[in-house]
Amino acid sequence: MIKVNSNFGKLQGSYLFSETAKRINAHAQAHPEAEIIRLGIGDVTMPICEAVSKAMHKAVDEMATKGGFHGYGPEQGYEFLRAAIAKNDYKARGVDIALDEIFVSDGSKCDTGNIGDILGSDCVVAVTDPVYPVYVDTNVMAGRSGDFDPATGRFKNIVYIVTDAGNSFVPEIPKQKVDIVYLCYPNNPTGMTLTRDQLKVWVDWANKEGVLILFDGAYERFITEDDVPHSIYEIEGAKTCAIEFRSFSKTAGFTGTRCAYTVVPKELMGRDDKGQAVSLNALWNRRHTTKFNGVSYVVQRGAEAVYSPEGRQQVESVLAYYLNNAKIILKGLADIGITAYGGVNSPYVWLKTPGGMDSWSFFDKLLKEANVAGTPGAGFGAAGEGYFRLTAFNTPENTERAIQRFASLNI
Amino acid sequence: MIKVNSNFGKLQGSYLFSETAKRINAHAQAHPEAEIIRLGIGDVTMPICEAVSKAMHKAVDEMATKGGFHGYGPEQGYEFLRAAIAKNDYKARGVDIALDEIFVSDGSKCDTGNIGDILGSDCVVAVTDPVYPVYVDTNVMAGRSGDFDPATGRFKNIVYIVTDAGNSFVPEIPKQKVDIVYLCYPNNPTGMTLTRDQLKVWVDWANKEGVLILFDGAYERFITEDDVPHSIYEIEGAKTCAIEFRSFSKTAGFTGTRCAYTVVPKELMGRDDKGQAVSLNALWNRRHTTKFNGVSYVVQRGAEAVYSPEGRQQVESVLAYYLNNAKIILKGLADIGITAYGGVNSPYVWLKTPGGMDSWSFFDKLLKEANVAGTPGAGFGAAGEGYFRLTAFNTPENTERAIQRFASLNI
Repeated sequence: MIKVNSNFGKLQGSYLFSETAKRINAHAQAHPEAEIIRLGIGDVTMPICEAVSKAMHKAVDEMATKGGFHGYGPEQGYEFLRAAIAKNDYKARGVDIALDEIFVSDGSKCDTGNIGDILGSDCVVAVTDPVYPVYVDTNVMAGRSGDFDPATGRFKNIVYIVTDAGNSFVPEIPKQKVDIVYLCYPNNPTGMTLTRDQLKVWVDWANKEGVLILFDGAYERFITEDDVPHSIYEIEGAKTCAIEFRSFSKTAGFTGTRCAYTVVPKELMGRDDKGQAVSLNALWNRRHTTKFNGVSYVVQRGAEAVYSPEGRQQVESVLAYYLNNAKIILKGLADIGITAYGGVNSPYVWLKTPGGMDSWSFFDKLLKEANVAGTPGAGFGAAGEGYFRLTAFNTPENTERAIQRFASLNI
Repeated sequence: MIKVNSNFGKLQGSYLFSETAKRINAHAQAHPEAEIIRLGIGDVTMPICEAVSKAMHKAVDEMATKGGFHGYGPEQGYEFLRAAIAKNDYKARGVDIALDEIFVSDGSKCDTGNIGDILGSDCVVAVTDPVYPVYVDTNVMAGRSGDFDPATGRFKNIVYIVTDAGNSFVPEIPKQKVDIVYLCYPNNPTGMTLTRDQLKVWVDWANKEGVLILFDGAYERFITEDDVPHSIYEIEGAKTCAIEFRSFSKTAGFTGTRCAYTVVPKELMGRDDKGQAVSLNALWNRRHTTKFNGVSYVVQRGAEAVYSPEGRQQVESVLAYYLNNAKIILKGLADIGITAYGGVNSPYVWLKTPGGMDSWSFFDKLLKEANVAGTPGAGFGAAGEGYFRLTAFNTPENTERAIQRFASLNI
């Protein structure tokens, strides 16, 4: 009999979005006349911009000719794209990132999951709570957790760092010894950020304690405030303790086009079981070239176009569109006295459920009484209980209407 | 200090193609007048066909409109593509594969590497020798090997199954107890195949012994002979012992476009450390949905077009072009008395180096005396010593010229 990875047996069902979909469908069937407005979706809704589609058309044409055809490309990504990333996402912010520190991939979900391949299986992992479930699940699969504890809703041996209104969504440095910590800022699901000073506390601690920070900056382009860093490498010392994940998904509507990248600085060193210093950049390069074969040429040309003058402008206007929706949500909630967070540097608004309702009860109430669908905060972790996520990925008209319906709720 | 995966320390440098490139470049610099013909390349050279580029253009247009935009798709691949695969690659050959047994991905290199995530870390792995290095390296990374032994050129605890002229390239069932075996047919690098009866021996043994066959069919479309199975599932019993990897890379020139798929039958069961039966399909589905976010919509539409009547015809004509080159090589070598294998159901020809030369000496001789570049068989494993790989991925004119130069070699 084939021996499987038994750690998969510890995983819990990916319950959140299937359960919300189930309840929404049941409601829609029971009330066919109801016009349900969905503010639960974590996916972009606006088309790819013209600069991107133009570049992709051009690349398809190239691929269809003998002279322009591209076979296997460099697994790390074409130099034209890595150069555009280094220049626009880093150099322009005063950060020097070399081309061989950038690894283009087909998604941050893959990268944040696969990064575990190069890390010790006995590393202690810390995550903020609430959290993007992929960080936890991929470490469970890799054997870095104990069993799931239904009483706490958490896995044993994973360190959960509560981030809620009680600490103004600024996570505290864990007291336990940890080896790896995932930080996602602007945060999914809370929409909150860390300032430069707040992030520096983490970088200094990580360098002092020998901790690896896995920094997920998927929502970077939504940042509007000056004191919020766009990259962890804006913080002095981050190159010796942090790997950064960035994506074109939310930036440029690439959730269905697929392109992302990971930065692994050459200064970043780990230690093997003989105590020898090992470059994480070299390890990730070996992993990336052995288990990945590069992103589609056509897609990389599309991603490159995001950095062109037209591309930048077109992308900015889409981001402004989403951020305007977030503003509508924030203002509407404030007007009716619902406390809400995020939404300023993020497409996500994280509200405190009114009257101390639990997340799922509020989900049901909002759906049944107002025909508005969101996402229960408890679905993102134990510390999300009593919170609720709304997203800016709908039209301004629907967003306005949804917020008006909030006002008519009996709360 | 960050604890890394120490298994990476066992890996050997990916020496083969960097070393051949180095020697070719040195020769080109020393002899700028030499017109070097490269028959070493394992990458397609013909553009994507018109049906594919048309479908991709259409999909890019869709993505650029509000009504046609696609965000996150199903991680397993769109139904339109999985239905085309099930119908054309399986049903048409009498094999029933359900849509939820097909997992579309961005490449077989990823899939053959990532599949290890769902398997026990203590599984004993067997590979044929010579072999595609990814099978070995990904298992070394996952801790399924001992150290590299420079004396044998092999990793300890990996079972190497010699496939050479001595056994007519039909690997023998290993005598040791193994848990996983990688089979690639048509084979890279030898270009040889197994007949139905020969493959059945492996399937029967795997079912009897509880072994998982990881069957890599990346070169399936090159099959011309009737008794060579196109899928392992043409063999009775394969659904309870085999996972199949297939790719559009060599089939339809997608090496730079990126699309592949993996079939995990629902009948295929493993056992966890408590002895419980576990569905490998369910495990791979969990892995695929947690660590992967689907293939680009545009690329999936391109892959779908490979199955259209025009796509099929266009792809066939490209495959015929490559197979004709292989024929030129085979005939040319036979004429000058060099023994060669493969090339009939494969773009690869595997020749016995004349006069018992070792692979690298023959590489140097061919490069220096005939200005032809190939790939030394020893680079694919210890049992590749004394062999040499030529590929059909050049023009017929260059292939003819290369073979004429072989004839003038002083051997």
